[in-house]
Amino acid sequence: MKKDMNLTMLTDFYEITMANGYFQTGMADDIAYFDMFFRRVPDGGGFAVMAGLEQVIDYLKNLTFTEQDIEYLRSKGIFCEEFLDYLRNFKFACDVWAVPEGTPIFPHEPIITVRGPVMQAQFVETMILLTINHQSLIATKANRIVRAAKGRPIMEFGTRRAHGADAAIYGARAAYIGGCAGTACAIADRDHGISALGTMAHSWVQMYPDEYSAFRKYAEIYPDNCVLLVDTYNVLKSGVPAAIRVFKEMKPAKMGIRIDSGDIAYLTKKARKMLDDAGLQDCKITISNSLDEYIIRDVLQEGACIDSFGVGERLITAKSEPVFGGVYKLAALETNGKMVPKIKISENVEKITNPGFKKLYRLYDKDTNKALGDVITLADESVPEGDGYEIFDPNAVWKRKKLKNFYAKNLRVQIFDHGECVYNSPDIDEIKAYAAEQIHTLWEETLRFENPQTYYVDLSQKLWDMKHKLLEEHNSIR
Amino acid sequence: MKKDMNLTMLTDFYEITMANGYFQTGMADDIAYFDMFFRRVPDGGGFAVMAGLEQVIDYLKNLTFTEQDIEYLRSKGIFCEEFLDYLRNFKFACDVWAVPEGTPIFPHEPIITVRGPVMQAQFVETMILLTINHQSLIATKANRIVRAAKGRPIMEFGTRRAHGADAAIYGARAAYIGGCAGTACAIADRDHGISALGTMAHSWVQMYPDEYSAFRKYAEIYPDNCVLLVDTYNVLKSGVPAAIRVFKEMKPAKMGIRIDSGDIAYLTKKARKMLDDAGLQDCKITISNSLDEYIIRDVLQEGACIDSFGVGERLITAKSEPVFGGVYKLAALETNGKMVPKIKISENVEKITNPGFKKLYRLYDKDTNKALGDVITLADESVPEGDGYEIFDPNAVWKRKKLKNFYAKNLRVQIFDHGECVYNSPDIDEIKAYAAEQIHTLWEETLRFENPQTYYVDLSQKLWDMKHKLLEEHNSIR
Repeated sequence: MKKDMNLTMLTDFYEITMANGYFQTGMADDIAYFDMFFRRVPDGGGFAVMAGLEQVIDYLKNLTFTEQDIEYLRSKGIFCEEFLDYLRNFKFACDVWAVPEGTPIFPHEPIITVRGPVMQAQFVETMILLTINHQSLIATKANRIVRAAKGRPIMEFGTRRAHGADAAIYGARAAYIGGCAGTACAIADRDHGISALGTMAHSWVQMYPDEYSAFRKYAEIYPDNCVLLVDTYNVLKSGVPAAIRVFKEMKPAKMGIRIDSGDIAYLTKKARKMLDDAGLQDCKITISNSLDEYIIRDVLQEGACIDSFGVGERLITAKSEPVFGGVYKLAALETNGKMVPKIKISENVEKITNPGFKKLYRLYDKDTNKALGDVITLADESVPEGDGYEIFDPNAVWKRKKLKNFYAKNLRVQIFDHGECVYNSPDIDEIKAYAAEQIHTLWEETLRFENPQTYYVDLSQKLWDMKHKLLEEHNSIR
Repeated sequence: MKKDMNLTMLTDFYEITMANGYFQTGMADDIAYFDMFFRRVPDGGGFAVMAGLEQVIDYLKNLTFTEQDIEYLRSKGIFCEEFLDYLRNFKFACDVWAVPEGTPIFPHEPIITVRGPVMQAQFVETMILLTINHQSLIATKANRIVRAAKGRPIMEFGTRRAHGADAAIYGARAAYIGGCAGTACAIADRDHGISALGTMAHSWVQMYPDEYSAFRKYAEIYPDNCVLLVDTYNVLKSGVPAAIRVFKEMKPAKMGIRIDSGDIAYLTKKARKMLDDAGLQDCKITISNSLDEYIIRDVLQEGACIDSFGVGERLITAKSEPVFGGVYKLAALETNGKMVPKIKISENVEKITNPGFKKLYRLYDKDTNKALGDVITLADESVPEGDGYEIFDPNAVWKRKKLKNFYAKNLRVQIFDHGECVYNSPDIDEIKAYAAEQIHTLWEETLRFENPQTYYVDLSQKLWDMKHKLLEEHNSIR
């Protein structure tokens, strides 16, 4: 499948209906601020991992309506010609701020803000959400699985169960950011530098009269790194014995066995003993069979002898919760040069938005470098360093805490300045290292798989006062 | 994001390791047969809907290793130059048979068979699985949701929660095959002819001083089809009254309201009454809020007044079970012109494969045109029509049944003949109509959401005898 596709039109149709609407009502160039944020971490986790920004940048840099797009839109019969002319000359002109990839992120934080002419800032909603939602979902899930393995490498093996080609490729990328050691997906290696590995399927073994012949051939061709799949017939009765025979005959530089079915704890303990008894202490054992963070945690607790894991469908689809619910909401307008904060009201308190143009700070303890909490402020505020800064729970304002001995970091960077990209995406290995380092600043209580401690995400007094005022104004209207 | 990508390298790395292995051992041109099949229907459903074949064909037609691919593979340092030369001149030369898109399919059926040189037939595994698994997953889920709505249109609204761009585009395509009326995804309309619709987000309403102004502007611009989003502030107190005022003033040709939050049954009944009391019986009510087949069934049972549904994340990710577990297994070899059936043994009886080169028949009752069951036969068999053909349960061979008054349909068509595509994919609307028609041949008991009746998928006596013989041979080896 040859792909030659401009994704400008990968958008919910209503973005176009609204853009034409703003155009026709003379509001197209009104300046609006939109925030992307999410409301809960999938799987009930304590934090998520930001991913996908590089692809969002790529998308925004390449926004162009082709003649084919214009023709398609004209065929719908509802858009005016002046609007179609505008699209023909479309140039992205917004400012964008975002949290860098690999950053631990929390509910309600403005992880991306887009400021610019409303018809543009609105238009980019769909692809920003699609891209960040997908990759953050997989990076977050991957990190859970990686943490369960306690230092043992996790290979991403899910290509065949991914939701289409992009889900395989960018899923592999996101999984790597989340801490995976590599992928089975060759194209993700070629294009994104994520080391790909793979050895044999059961069919390789079936092509030969017996396992010994199949393994022996493989070892002759790949003497440097010889990982043999030992569960085509019977792991302990035929697979492992045949592998041992070949390892002893061929003495490959690196050797391993992979088990893809059966009881993991039982089989790996028995196989380990057989290998050790044969003097093959260097032979590694890899497991790959519908794994996730819970199974990995459990089999390791049962004493399974495993050196690395291949994790497929439950990682690449985030099977236990395959939706990352990021949303994109209007936060402010500029009217005659004046900032007008906007709030989205809901009967569900959790769904009320944080108004205004904002900043996001993370506060770290100076001695331990552990993260103490995040504070969302208005854009013209800064967090005073040193002692005495008071944070409070926005849902229980009497819960207040004076912070001492901390430093604050502005978590977001500017990505576009009036449509010009002013940010260089780091190398994928830098992003991965940054993610690991930043996740290390979180307390164990936040890392827990189930019922983690809720990390503080507080509002500055000034932002809270503004939000409260808007809520009161709104209620007085009812 | 501009896409210009050859997907030949979207493959699990082991396909390449094995291909090089077959090449180096002189087995490259041995003829092998691989079957794609799946073992269970997601969500415990009674059947799945085949989808994705058009994209598989596209992939197979365009298999080419570019110089960039060759260079990448050379950089891995494990492949011989002769193999890389072979890839440079690679031409797909296999035969392919498949079940057409839209066909109801069942566990263990060979929905695709690839016959050809083993290194080729093996290589295409990953993309065949990826593509069919993804689209069949979404088509199957979509059909459940469509059936729950009992004739009311379902719009696919999930783009922003899809797992990347392809998941959005081909998910919209698969959802349409499964019976959805259209999509929110503009590019799926432009490229695949799936009608896209969309009107406004909450931000449109927030851009104006009040709902009335926002709705009035919208109705002025789109007088022909005016669907207003009424839940930005309060559905019954402000949204619906403002919509009614605008409808009465502007008299749009088509009018509707959309509710995206809150209690669906309560709000739609109240809104319906308000609209009717205002003489707006023609105004339609659309609902969109984390819907799936269960919620739709339940709110309709509660008497909710709904004309159509927009279904997002739970459809586009198949949230309740986001994995379609199709596999691709070696079924036979040709050795010196002789067919050698192959079987994959497993302690789990469900995982034992059906050996040999096979055909798939569906038997229909002549009077009712209802499907009676499917029979997998060897390729050189045909199912005799007329009375007296005996089918039996392969897991309980004493359960036998003589069929009368039926006709048999060979469910698979040839797609490639020695690498040449010999099949024209039908138009998407034909596929959708075919799916609806074929699903109509299934009994209600098979369509049930929970604990459906298991549809008969039997083996011919000849195939069963061969399988049994292979199992016995295998056991005598142990």
